[in-house]
Amino acid sequence: METLTPTSTCSHTRVGLTTSKPTEFIDLTARIEALVADSGVDVGFVNIQTLHTTTAIVVNEGEPLLLGDFTALLEQAAPRDRRYRHDDLIARTVNITAEERVNGHAHCRALLLPSSACLNISAGTLMLGTWQRVFLVELDGPRVRHVSILIAGEGRR
Amino acid sequence: METLTPTSTCSHTRVGLTTSKPTEFIDLTARIEALVADSGVDVGFVNIQTLHTTTAIVVNEGEPLLLGDFTALLEQAAPRDRRYRHDDLIARTVNITAEERVNGHAHCRALLLPSSACLNISAGTLMLGTWQRVFLVELDGPRVRHVSILIAGEGRR
Amino acid sequence: METLTPTSTCSHTRVGLTTSKPTEFIDLTARIEALVADSGVDVGFVNIQTLHTTTAIVVNEGEPLLLGDFTALLEQAAPRDRRYRHDDLIARTVNITAEERVNGHAHCRALLLPSSACLNISAGTLMLGTWQRVFLVELDGPRVRHVSILIAGEGRR
Repeated sequence: METLTPTSTCSHTRVGLTTSKPTEFIDLTARIEALVADSGVDVGFVNIQTLHTTTAIVVNEGEPLLLGDFTALLEQAAPRDRRYRHDDLIARTVNITAEERVNGHAHCRALLLPSSACLNISAGTLMLGTWQRVFLVELDGPRVRHVSILIAGEGRR
Repeated sequence: METLTPTSTCSHTRVGLTTSKPTEFIDLTARIEALVADSGVDVGFVNIQTLHTTTAIVVNEGEPLLLGDFTALLEQAAPRDRRYRHDDLIARTVNITAEERVNGHAHCRALLLPSSACLNISAGTLMLGTWQRVFLVELDGPRVRHVSILIAGEGRR
Repeated sequence: METLTPTSTCSHTRVGLTTSKPTEFIDLTARIEALVADSGVDVGFVNIQTLHTTTAIVVNEGEPLLLGDFTALLEQAAPRDRRYRHDDLIARTVNITAEERVNGHAHCRALLLPSSACLNISAGTLMLGTWQRVFLVELDGPRVRHVSILIAGEGRR
């Protein structure tokens, strides 16, 4: 007869994905739930962090028309056609790359959204309400993007 | 003479509460501080996560007139009377329930606020500045709501 | 020959700093990276939390013109010259101090930004994308401010 003893676990995963639109909500929930199951963590948390400055991590409902409302809200908060100083490549002196994009609006939208989400794990399950889904929000796509996922807690292995 | 050795702790609590207004700031600070004290954690953190998509967890000052300013700001950012595609039940095809609410504005407000707050614990005390209070923000009340609270760290037991 | 065994680490640091402008982005990245290196944590996370209600912790690009765009966005979201009930010291009954500031706009701006950032650590390194920098955002300066930093995870010591 095997006796399981509690053990402390801490594991990191880097996930790559490709977005296809200027603004897009990529549902990461199934991936995160699979990583939580694989981790063997019983009680703990998962921290999902974007590695980019024109993306965000949000938790909300994944109803398609609602995602359209979110896109309209972000366009209202920081319109794409407004002039942003960040896009004035004559005035700018730093952080200029060969493939520089006109993306001041995307940085401003990212400022208003979280760059990470910390979610709890209980009884081996990612704590999410009925309608909660975890999204990488693309704000300046299409692009190749990376997300960093840390799972930590106590498990039974 | 007893010698206390450091131990790793990780505990989860689910808290239920009932809100009474469409927009409401429920102060969770005393509850969280009591859970931190009970946990025996000396150095660590607490992650407070809402389990709903029309609520938020924010940390700010609890002055009543300021909470009125916050309500006005949220109304300005995503007015209740604007048309949201999410509320068009003829066009919508998914996530429709018997008690469906007209709450596109509440989801949009939730998008602009965090769904969780991760706060530090040091010397057995929740780290909060003089004016900081932790609130569950109800954006589509009144409702029964649930909050997930994870406390982890090193304790002396 | 030495064999390193994994150990669980949890350490807290309180950092003080002085801001010099009403709105200011203070880059904390180098400080956080130094604390992560000192901690000996190999896989884990760092939670950076402000201890004030008129500041925020954000992760975005540190390009100076972009920081000007962010300041303009915050001024648009919650203008300094608008009337806030919080600043009506005749109507207010609580939380009034001798050095009370006219700062309803700063609280409202703080509501729209995170009060903490949880970032992952992998291979002993703070996970940050090419352009990501961590900022304390001063919204009601100049002031003396404090930030709470918790680092936890598994290390090799």
